[in-house]
Order: sequence, then C-alpha cells, then structure tokens
Amino acid sequence: MRYSRKCVSEAEGYVPGEQPTDGGYIKLNTNENPYPPSPHVLEALRAAIGPQARLYPPPTADRLRDKLAEVYGFSRDEIVVTNGMDELLSLIVRTFVEPDDTVVVTYPTYMLYEMLVRLHGAKTVSHELNEDFSLPDSVFGARGRVLFLSRPNSPTGTMFDRRLMDRGVRRFDGIVVIDEAYVDFAEDNCLDSVRQFDNVIVVRTFSKSFSLAGLRVGFGIAHREIVDDLMKVKDSYNVNTLSQIAGIAALEDYEYMRNNVEKIKRTRERLASELKAFGFIVPGSQANFLLAVPDGYALSAEQIYTRLKEEKKILVRYFPMRRLENSIRITIGTDTEIDALLDAMKNIL
Amino acid sequence: MRYSRKCVSEAEGYVPGEQPTDGGYIKLNTNENPYPPSPHVLEALRAAIGPQARLYPPPTADRLRDKLAEVYGFSRDEIVVTNGMDELLSLIVRTFVEPDDTVVVTYPTYMLYEMLVRLHGAKTVSHELNEDFSLPDSVFGARGRVLFLSRPNSPTGTMFDRRLMDRGVRRFDGIVVIDEAYVDFAEDNCLDSVRQFDNVIVVRTFSKSFSLAGLRVGFGIAHREIVDDLMKVKDSYNVNTLSQIAGIAALEDYEYMRNNVEKIKRTRERLASELKAFGFIVPGSQANFLLAVPDGYALSAEQIYTRLKEEKKILVRYFPMRRLENSIRITIGTDTEIDALLDAMKNIL
Repeated sequence: MRYSRKCVSEAEGYVPGEQPTDGGYIKLNTNENPYPPSPHVLEALRAAIGPQARLYPPPTADRLRDKLAEVYGFSRDEIVVTNGMDELLSLIVRTFVEPDDTVVVTYPTYMLYEMLVRLHGAKTVSHELNEDFSLPDSVFGARGRVLFLSRPNSPTGTMFDRRLMDRGVRRFDGIVVIDEAYVDFAEDNCLDSVRQFDNVIVVRTFSKSFSLAGLRVGFGIAHREIVDDLMKVKDSYNVNTLSQIAGIAALEDYEYMRNNVEKIKRTRERLASELKAFGFIVPGSQANFLLAVPDGYALSAEQIYTRLKEEKKILVRYFPMRRLENSIRITIGTDTEIDALLDAMKNIL
Repeated sequence: MRYSRKCVSEAEGYVPGEQPTDGGYIKLNTNENPYPPSPHVLEALRAAIGPQARLYPPPTADRLRDKLAEVYGFSRDEIVVTNGMDELLSLIVRTFVEPDDTVVVTYPTYMLYEMLVRLHGAKTVSHELNEDFSLPDSVFGARGRVLFLSRPNSPTGTMFDRRLMDRGVRRFDGIVVIDEAYVDFAEDNCLDSVRQFDNVIVVRTFSKSFSLAGLRVGFGIAHREIVDDLMKVKDSYNVNTLSQIAGIAALEDYEYMRNNVEKIKRTRERLASELKAFGFIVPGSQANFLLAVPDGYALSAEQIYTRLKEEKKILVRYFPMRRLENSIRITIGTDTEIDALLDAMKNIL
C-alpha cells in the first residue's frame, strides 16, 4: 500500500500454524494442550456471562494480577497482563526499542521476535545456537536494546543452562526477555532472575499448560519500573472481562494444570523413546513438543509432514528454515493421539 | 525506566474513565450502553464455553469478517477485526506512520489518537475545531501521514459535515481514519467513502451500540491493500474465540441493537431538552452521550462532577482540558438513570 511504512510493505507477516476449520485432524502442530481447561474455569466462565458484558473490563486486571502475585510470589506492581503473550512481546519492542535500534535474538528460535522487531522498523542481530542448541556465551556480550531468549527454546524444546543465564543477564546492557511460554513442562524456571536483576522480563502464557489458548491471556513479571512503562504503552482495555476471569479461575485450580503437565511429560518421554527406537534423532525436550529428525530414511522431514497431513490427517509442524529443514516439530497430544501418530509413522516409513 | 524509549518515559499514558469496582454507582462516564447485550449473544457465548478453549482462535476471524461483510456490504478482504477499536487505532499508527512523521488530529477530540502517536515516537499537528465544534476546511490541507477524525466527535457528540468530509478526503495525501465508534447513534455514516477512496479507513466497535464493551471487538473497513498491511502488523491471534462468537451473534440480532439505539436516542433528546431548560448549553449530539455546559451557575463543571460523584454516587466525565474545562460529558443511560441524574442535578444546583 503506497501509504504504508517501508518496513511493513517489505514484511511478509508471521504465518501461524495451520488452524483447519474442517474437523477430523489430529492437531499436533501448534503446541496447544490436548486436555481441556479445568472444569472450574469453564464454570467460572459460564457464571460470568451476563448483562455486565456491556461494561468495559477492569483496565489493569488487578484481580488477576493479585492472584498471579500470590501464586508466583511477587507483588501486583511487578506484573502486567496482556492479550496473549504475543501482545506482550510486541509491547516490549514498542517500549524499549527505538526504530533503528538493534535487538539481539538467537537462531533458531521463535520467529515472531524477529518479525516484531522488523515491523517496528528496527533490526536484529542473530546469534547462532551451538550444534546441540545450547546457548553460546557470546550472546550476552552482544550490543542491543533487548535480548530475546526462549527457555525452553521453541521450536527445539531444549533448555539453556541456568547458570549461564544468570551470569549472562548480569552482563547484558539492556532488557533481557526470558520467554517461559513452555516452562511449566520444564525442570526449572528463571523467576529468581526477576528478583535479582532489574533488567529481566519473564513472559508467560495461559495458552499452553493452562489449556486456554482460545482465551488469550499472557503475563509478564519484571521490576516495577519495567511494568510501569509497559502499562503505559498497552491499550487501556487490552484483556477482556471473560479472559481475566478465566485466568483467575485457572490459577485457583493450579493442581489441575500440574496434573495435565505431568501426563504430558510422561507422554513426551514415551514418544521420544519410540521415535529414537525408529531411528529419529530427538533433542532432549522440556516443553510440550519435541523436535524429531528422521535419520537414514528415504523420506525427508517435509515429505513425512506432507504424508501425515494428506494421508493420515495428522498435522505436525514443518519449518522450511535453515537447521530445521530436516526436522518436524510434534506437539505432545493425548496418549491416544500419539499412538495414532506412531502407527501412522510406522505405516509411512 | 533507564532502558525505556524517551517517548515512553516522557508519556503519561492514557487515563481511561473510572471503572469503580465497588457497586452502587450510576455509571454515566464511559459511554457504555445501558442495555445488556442481545439474549442471542449471551446464549451463543454460553454455548461456546467448552473444551475447545484449549485451541487457538481463528487467526483472521473469517466467520466474523464474512458476517460483517454481509451486513455492511463489503467483502471479507476489506475488513479487519481487532481486540477492541483501540487496538485498531494503534495498528494504524504502527502501519502507516514512521517515527518522526507527523499525524494530523483535531482539537478537542479523543485524546488517545495523540497519545498513540507520541508513544510511537511521532508527532501530531493539531487543528482547532471551530467554535461550534465544526470541522475547519484547513484540516484536509495539512501535511501528515494520517488524519484522525472522530465522527460523531468525542467528547463533543457533534457531527462533521458530510459533504465537507467527502471533498476533504479526496484532498488529503495520506490515510484518513474516520472513527465511527458512535455512528449507530447518528444520522448518517461514511461507509461510502471507503467505496470511493482508497485512503480511508472507517473504524468501528461493538462496545457502544452492541453493548459489548467487555468483550473487546473492533473492526475496520478499508481498501483491501490497507487491510492487507494492517493484518501483517496485528498479532496472529488478536481476537479471542469468545469475542469472535459474540460479534457474529450480535450481528445476527441486528434489530435488537437498532431498538436499543432508538431508545437511547429518545432518552438523549429528552435529557438535552431538560438540561437546556435548566440553563445548560448542550451542543447537538449524535452519539450516546452529550456535552453539557453549565451556564450562569455558582458551581463549575468540575464541582458538579465532584458533587454528583461524592454526594449522589453518579459518575459523569470531566475533562480538565482547554475548551472542555467548563463541560461535563454525560453518557445516555436508561430513562431511570437519567431521571436520577436530573433529580440529583436539581438538588445540587
């Protein structure tokens, strides 16, 4: 469009995973939770539907922030709630990055970081992960306004070393964003870094472990001065009334989430073993998905992706990107879904 | 915060109208609809609450866009759906305005336009509305990437002349945003401008006439090239599943909205007459609110606002801004609420 910014005209836009509207697919492509939200959440939502939908939502989501503060051991002022985590990532760029500034990212990682930076008119410098997808120490010496780290990393599922992170955060002269979208499926987290350092934002979501992708609730935990500025930039009423209620209710039934997470972790380990037995290379995952590299098969990863989709109606994710072009990413489904996937794989390969 | 952009550190942030969490207030301050959403909407929402909340929403809201296209006589590609209209206004700035560019606004109008431009690192040039709040022709000759016009204008409630708009849009070399948040309460609209000109975006919301402020659904209608670029910049899953369903259901019961609008217009005319009889000056409003200027009273507008709130638990809006410092803005409530307001006014004045 002739009136658009150059950075927008030139961008291709982020392409999310397929969301088929015709049913019948086993959907293992966008890291949704295979288990439904807690019955307590659905009940709270049903109870909340009524005439008050005519009123604006609480602008700063204080009840949800208070509940988050209680559960994670922070204060309300250290928490910001957003319309999914994507909005929070966008807010971070808009709050801390001048156009023409540089943002530090790793490769491979969640492609949205780079997309958001470009759409803002700024640039990224990308640090290559080591061969085993571990973090090169050099990343913390890079110069940039913001450093994005995904831990567990998407789409590899791997974790960055915790001690390396702590040492690094201290060194980086800018905001360090630690994307913990998948952290409930992992062994540890970086919330302590927020307590120690005033330049860290831990960002999380209700979309994965809490099974609430449809409701769009994300949150960030950071020093209150960071939160203050993010709150200035966010839309006044960025999280709708029902989503705030869903978030509160989900936290009230935290145990339900933990049980689902344990089930998913067991299924993940089983799937990893079976894929390895097939001859796949599977980097150790601490997320609700894993990367699988077919090794020594006649079919390429892309062909496996296509045949699973077309012949078996099973969706996994294929990224036509350097270092990932020979991998598929598989979301951990229910045991039944994973059995179906394994059967389909045996059949195809 | 030392890492924040200068434009963010210096900004104060938009302050929305009060949303008291303790009940008991008659809330005539944020232009919400006093009538509940259609029963059909509430039913559709209840039916939609279930296990599928674990899945991401349709990323481009195609079913809702198709319904909007049908109702307003456009095609899907000419429509973008957003997390409330505020998100759309922000997207417009981020899509069309380079930092350091200029954006044209009027004064007085919705203060969010200027706030969004500043938070983006760009600047505004402001054109003063005439004494009767009509639009000065000069605004269309101004130079800027985007021109924001609110029609009916907030917070004055007044309409800009339609023929002046049509002539002007043709002249302005940039994007003209026509904010029609309140247009369902008015006599005409500018949808025809979208059909005629490729630089117009009409922006609307389900928050006012459709009584869905809590659900956060806004939409824009524009040439498809404009929509394409806005869609690139928006978050992938910007509108949650339930809000999309609420929007569709609200359009399916369009008549319900029209009936509420007619009731509100009747109440508006009655309130305007009564206030004039009291000796207020009331500019002609075509919105679901009106501006009232107390004339010849011992109490100032600010004092009336404060006493209504503190003594009568009635919230109206007071803007401590040039040209508005002697006005209060009153949202049109139910007839009962407006009777209570009028009684309270008689009592105070």
